[in-house]
Amino acid sequence: MNPAAPPAAVDDLYRDVSAADLQPLWRLQGLLTEQPTTRAFPHRWPGTTLRSLAGRARDLVPIGGGGDRRVLACANPGLGGAPYATPTLWAAVQALAAGERAPAHRHTPAALRFVLDGAGVWTAVDGDALHMSRGDLVLTPSWTFHEHYNPGERPMTWLDVLDLPIVQFLGAVFYQPGEAAVVDARPARSASEHRFGGGPGLLPQPLDGPVPPAHSPLLAYRWPDTDRALALLLADGADHARVRFTDPTTGRDAMPTLRCEMIRVAAASVTGGSRQTGSQVLTVFSGEGRAVVGGVEFPLEQGDVVAVPSWATLSLSTGPGLDLFCVSDAPVLEGLGLYRRIETDD
Amino acid sequence: MNPAAPPAAVDDLYRDVSAADLQPLWRLQGLLTEQPTTRAFPHRWPGTTLRSLAGRARDLVPIGGGGDRRVLACANPGLGGAPYATPTLWAAVQALAAGERAPAHRHTPAALRFVLDGAGVWTAVDGDALHMSRGDLVLTPSWTFHEHYNPGERPMTWLDVLDLPIVQFLGAVFYQPGEAAVVDARPARSASEHRFGGGPGLLPQPLDGPVPPAHSPLLAYRWPDTDRALALLLADGADHARVRFTDPTTGRDAMPTLRCEMIRVAAASVTGGSRQTGSQVLTVFSGEGRAVVGGVEFPLEQGDVVAVPSWATLSLSTGPGLDLFCVSDAPVLEGLGLYRRIETDD
Amino acid sequence: MNPAAPPAAVDDLYRDVSAADLQPLWRLQGLLTEQPTTRAFPHRWPGTTLRSLAGRARDLVPIGGGGDRRVLACANPGLGGAPYATPTLWAAVQALAAGERAPAHRHTPAALRFVLDGAGVWTAVDGDALHMSRGDLVLTPSWTFHEHYNPGERPMTWLDVLDLPIVQFLGAVFYQPGEAAVVDARPARSASEHRFGGGPGLLPQPLDGPVPPAHSPLLAYRWPDTDRALALLLADGADHARVRFTDPTTGRDAMPTLRCEMIRVAAASVTGGSRQTGSQVLTVFSGEGRAVVGGVEFPLEQGDVVAVPSWATLSLSTGPGLDLFCVSDAPVLEGLGLYRRIETDD
Amino acid sequence: MNPAAPPAAVDDLYRDVSAADLQPLWRLQGLLTEQPTTRAFPHRWPGTTLRSLAGRARDLVPIGGGGDRRVLACANPGLGGAPYATPTLWAAVQALAAGERAPAHRHTPAALRFVLDGAGVWTAVDGDALHMSRGDLVLTPSWTFHEHYNPGERPMTWLDVLDLPIVQFLGAVFYQPGEAAVVDARPARSASEHRFGGGPGLLPQPLDGPVPPAHSPLLAYRWPDTDRALALLLADGADHARVRFTDPTTGRDAMPTLRCEMIRVAAASVTGGSRQTGSQVLTVFSGEGRAVVGGVEFPLEQGDVVAVPSWATLSLSTGPGLDLFCVSDAPVLEGLGLYRRIETDD
Repeated sequence: MNPAAPPAAVDDLYRDVSAADLQPLWRLQGLLTEQPTTRAFPHRWPGTTLRSLAGRARDLVPIGGGGDRRVLACANPGLGGAPYATPTLWAAVQALAAGERAPAHRHTPAALRFVLDGAGVWTAVDGDALHMSRGDLVLTPSWTFHEHYNPGERPMTWLDVLDLPIVQFLGAVFYQPGEAAVVDARPARSASEHRFGGGPGLLPQPLDGPVPPAHSPLLAYRWPDTDRALALLLADGADHARVRFTDPTTGRDAMPTLRCEMIRVAAASVTGGSRQTGSQVLTVFSGEGRAVVGGVEFPLEQGDVVAVPSWATLSLSTGPGLDLFCVSDAPVLEGLGLYRRIETDD
Repeated sequence: MNPAAPPAAVDDLYRDVSAADLQPLWRLQGLLTEQPTTRAFPHRWPGTTLRSLAGRARDLVPIGGGGDRRVLACANPGLGGAPYATPTLWAAVQALAAGERAPAHRHTPAALRFVLDGAGVWTAVDGDALHMSRGDLVLTPSWTFHEHYNPGERPMTWLDVLDLPIVQFLGAVFYQPGEAAVVDARPARSASEHRFGGGPGLLPQPLDGPVPPAHSPLLAYRWPDTDRALALLLADGADHARVRFTDPTTGRDAMPTLRCEMIRVAAASVTGGSRQTGSQVLTVFSGEGRAVVGGVEFPLEQGDVVAVPSWATLSLSTGPGLDLFCVSDAPVLEGLGLYRRIETDD
Repeated sequence: MNPAAPPAAVDDLYRDVSAADLQPLWRLQGLLTEQPTTRAFPHRWPGTTLRSLAGRARDLVPIGGGGDRRVLACANPGLGGAPYATPTLWAAVQALAAGERAPAHRHTPAALRFVLDGAGVWTAVDGDALHMSRGDLVLTPSWTFHEHYNPGERPMTWLDVLDLPIVQFLGAVFYQPGEAAVVDARPARSASEHRFGGGPGLLPQPLDGPVPPAHSPLLAYRWPDTDRALALLLADGADHARVRFTDPTTGRDAMPTLRCEMIRVAAASVTGGSRQTGSQVLTVFSGEGRAVVGGVEFPLEQGDVVAVPSWATLSLSTGPGLDLFCVSDAPVLEGLGLYRRIETDD
Repeated sequence: MNPAAPPAAVDDLYRDVSAADLQPLWRLQGLLTEQPTTRAFPHRWPGTTLRSLAGRARDLVPIGGGGDRRVLACANPGLGGAPYATPTLWAAVQALAAGERAPAHRHTPAALRFVLDGAGVWTAVDGDALHMSRGDLVLTPSWTFHEHYNPGERPMTWLDVLDLPIVQFLGAVFYQPGEAAVVDARPARSASEHRFGGGPGLLPQPLDGPVPPAHSPLLAYRWPDTDRALALLLADGADHARVRFTDPTTGRDAMPTLRCEMIRVAAASVTGGSRQTGSQVLTVFSGEGRAVVGGVEFPLEQGDVVAVPSWATLSLSTGPGLDLFCVSDAPVLEGLGLYRRIETDD
C-alpha cells in the first residue's frame, strides 16, 4: 500500500470495492501463472474396475428407470466433485444389455463412442444406422439425433467422450428429446460410409449441401482400416505411429472440439516425453505398458482410462506393444492460437 | 432402480462407483439442459462507481507496491467470488496516475483497452508505442509484451477486457515479465498504423512474416475512424448501426477470442431484442438509455459496464442516442459451431 | 462514325491508332460474346487407333533417340495445329516397351497418368516408386521429378493429361532434367501410400512439413478403391455415380489445376445433359455407350478419348454400363469465380 | 528414329499419326522450356500518344454509333494482332465526352478503371453510383452491371484493365446488355463506401449475404487514402513503398483475377530488379523516371502504359519521384501454385 495512505481510507476503499462487486487485481493470486496450472490430477481408472462396475450397473439399474443412458462418468478427483475426467472432457463407460435401447435425443455437446470390446450394438445418427464393433470409432456430432440399440443377445460396453464441459463453460448447451424412433434397419454399411467410406481421397460428387457441415460426414472409422493404417506407418521401423481421425472432405479433425487419434507403440519401445496445452483422455485398446503422466507412473492395461492434465508430461513404454485411443481438446486450443506442444526429456 | 434389484446390492454399487471416482449419469442433474443455463447474472457496474473507486485506488495504492497493474475487476455476483464479469470474460477499469508506468510483461490471455475518457497514456506493444485517447481501441494480443506509461500531468482510466477465463479454463496461461523497458518514444502514429492504418482495403506489400499472425497487425482503431464509419452507416436512416473491429489482412475478428464491436443506437430508438450463445460485456461510451438484459432493466449512463450472460435477451433504447462498446466471446463459439443468435420479441 | 466527321480525319485517326499499336474496341468483333465461344471442336480419338499407333511408335521409335518420352498428343482439329486436346488440356497416350526407361525430369506443368490397360510400369515421383496397374491414377504434380521404367517383359500404354496449355498461357513453364537416376526399388506400396493410403479420413501425424503442399501427398489412387467407392454409391439404385480424386489432407482436388473424377453409368441408363465452363477430356475405361457432345454423337469404346469444349452439352448413354475417367480444368475456373454448370434438356 | 526401323514404315507412321489428329511429342519444340517464354514484348505506349488519340477519337467517333464504349486497346506487337497488352491482360484508354453516357452491360470478364486525370464521370455498378476523380481506382467486377456517364462539361479519359484474355482462354465469357438505365443519382459517397469505407479494419455488421462475393464489396479506393498510405509507408526512409488494393472483408486481392497495387518510388531512387511469373501492366500516375524491362529501357512519363511480360526483369529509377499503378495476373498464378518472384541483379 501507499505508505502515506491513511490505513482507514485504504480499509474503506477495499470495503467499497467489494460492495461494488469489484476485486482489486493486486490482491488476487494465481491468475497469471508462469506456466499452466490446473486443478485436475493425473489419474487412472482401471479397466477392470470400469468393466466390473458397468456390468453391475447393467444388472441392477434399468435404462428406462433412471435416465436415458446407463453411463458411469469418470470424475477427476482434483475437480471438486465435477463429473469430468479433465476440465474440458467428459469420459465415461456406457453399457447396454441385450435387447435394450437408449432412446433418441440430441444435444449441442458432441460425443464419440469407441468400442473397447464386443460387437452388436447399433447407433443411429440422424437416422443412419451404424453397427458398432471392437475398435470402431463412431461419431455422434453436435446436434445430431442419436440412439443406441442392442438387438443381439450379449451386453456391450464402450467408451463415451464428450466435449460437455467446454459447451457448458461457453453457455451453449441445448438438448432435445427425439421422436420415439423404431429404427430397426441394420444395413451392412451406413449411408455415411456408402458415400464417404470408399477409400482414401475418394469423395462422392456432388457433396450434399452447399456448405459442408462442421463435422465429418463420415461417421464411423472402422478398426480394420485403422489397424492397417497404423501397420503401414510402422512398417519403416519407427517406435510408434499415430493416426488422426479426420473429416475426409477437409482433412480437419472429425469434430471441431475433439481430436481423436490412435497411437500404436511398437513392442519393447519407450516414447519420448511431451507436454501440450489442453487436456487429454487416453484409453488402452490393447496391449499393456506404463504411462508417466506429470511425474506419476501408471500401469496400463486393456480398458484403462487415463486423464492427462494440461501441460503435464506424458511418456509411454511397453513390452508387448500398446494401442491407445487418445482424445483431446487440441482443436479448440489450435483455433484460438493457444496450442503449444513440446518434447521433454522426462 | 430396477424394481427387482436387491436394495443392498444397489447401495453397494453406488458406494463402489463413488469410491472408484465415477459418477452415475442417471443421478446427475442439470447437465443437458433444454437451453443454456449459466450462473452469471445480468449485472451493471455503474460508471460513476467505477470512476470513483478507480480514483480512490489511484490515490491510495501505489502501482509498484501491490502489483503490476492498478486494476479493479468486475466480479459477477453469480460466479461465486470469481473476479470475472462473465464466465468467459474479464472486465476491469485500470487507472494510471500522472507520471506512472505499468511495467512490461506478456501473457497468453489476450487483452484490449478501450478509452472511456481522457488522453495521454501510451501503451507499447512489442515495443511499438501507441497513444491512447478517448474512444480508441488498443489491442495487446496474446503473448505480446505490453506496458503502459503516462508521461502527462493528468491521470487516466480505461476499460480492460481479457479472455483470461477462457485461457484459464483451457489450461493455457503462460506469463513472463518483460525487460526493464524505457520506451519513451511518442510517435505521431504507431508503426502498426504506419503500415496498416492507411485506409480501408489498403495493405502494405510485402506483408511481414511468412504466415500472418493470429491477431490483427493493426493494433489501434481510432475514434475518428470509428465515429465516421458509424455515421456513414446511419446515414440511410436505420435505427442503429454496428461496426466490427477486424484484422484488415483477413477480415476476421481482431483477436481470435474476442469480438469487438461498436454499436450506435440512433436518438429516440428502441432496438429489437436478441439473444446469443456466449456472453457479452457492454460499456457505455456516450449517450444514455436503457438496457433490458434477461428481463432485468438497467439504466445506461456514460462509463457503465454491463454483463450479458449467455442466451439472455438484450434490447436497448435511448432518447438522446447511445454509443456502446461491446465485447463478446463469439469468435470462440463460431469456430466451434456453437454460436446461435436469434431475434426475440421481448 | 460521327456523321459530321470528315472522312479523311477518320481515316487518319485509324492509321495513327494502328501505328501506335492500338486497336479501337468498336471495330473488334467477338470479344464479348453472349455465351462462351471456343475454337475447339467436340472430338473423339478412337481407342483402337490410339493403341495401334502407340504400338507402331513403340516398335519404330526408340525412346532415347527422339526425346524423353514416347507420347502421341491429341491435337484438337479446331485449334489450328496446336498439340492440345482442348484449349487448356494436353491429353496423350504414352507407350513404354519392356525394359525401357523414360528418364527423370520435372516441370511446372502438372501431369497425371491413368492406366487404361496392363500393368508393370513403375513411376518414381521425387524418388517414391509407384507401381502402375489397370485403373490406377498416378499423379506427377507440378515441379516433382518423375520418371517411368518398365522392368517387365510386356509393353504398356497409358493416358497422360497435363495442364500444359494453362501453364504456357500464364508464362510459367519451367523445366529441369533430373539426375541420372537408377531407381530400382519396387516396394509393395509407395511411401506416399504408406502414409496417406490407410483409409478414408485417416491421416498420419505429424504431417510432413509446416505447410501442406498445393497437391495431394497421396500420389496413387488404386482401382480397387475407386471401383468399390463407385459400387457403394450405386448401391442405392442411382443411374450413375461420380467419385472425385481429392487430397486427403484438404478434400480439395488432387492437383490445383486438374479435376479428376471417375463416372460410372449404370447399365441401360441415359444421363441428363449438362454443360459447364472450361473444357474436359473423357476416357473410356470400360464398357461402351454413346456420348452426345455439343450436338455431335460419338460411339464410346474402351480406350477412346473425347474432348468436350467449354459450354458444350454432354450426355451419356450405355447399354452394358460405362466407366469414364474424366479430367477438367474446373478447379481453375472455380478459383476465379468463373465456373458455371447447368443441367440441360438436350 | 530407331536405326533399324525401315524408313518407309516410319514415314507411314507419321502420316497415320497426323491423319488421326495426333502429334508426336518427340518432334515438338519449345513446349517445355527451361524458363518461361512468351511472345509478348516489353512495350511502352506513351501517355502523350494515348491522350492525343483518345481525344481525336472522342471528337470523331460517336459513342452510340460504333459500339458501347469508346476505347483504344493496347495491342502488344508480339501477340500477332491480338488486342491485348500482355497474353493475359487487356489495357486500354477510355474517353467520355461531356454529356455522354456509355450504357449498362455486364460480362464475366472483370474490369477496373484507374483515373489518370480529371474528374466528373460517374460509374454505376449494379446501380451504385461512384464518382471518379484523379487517382481513384474503381472496380466493375465480374458479372456486375456497369455504365459510365459524364454529366459535366469536360471530357474525361481513364485507364481500363480487364482480365478478358484469361476469361476468353478459359471459355467463360458471358455478356448481357443492361436495362436502359437512367441513373442520375450523384451521392457524395457510394453505398459501397458507406458500408465498407469507414476506415481500416472497420466492417459493418451484419455483412450482406450469407457468403461474401468473390470480389471486394468496396468498389472504390480513393486517391487521398492511397496517397496517405504510401506517405506513411515511406516515412521510415525506404526507397519505395507498395500498397495493395484488397477486399476489406478478406484481405485478399480486390478481384480474384487482378492484383492492383500502387508503387511509389522516392525521389532520387533506383529499385532493385525483380522478375515474376505472369504479366504486368504499369501506368505512370505522376512523376517521371525510367524503367528497364527485360533489358529494354523506357522513359516513364505521366500516362504511359508499359507491358511487362512474364519473367522479364523490371527495375525502376526516378529523379523527382514516381507513382505507378500496377496491375498483374498474380492472384491467378498464386492460386495455382505457379507464382514465382525473385530479386535480380540487373
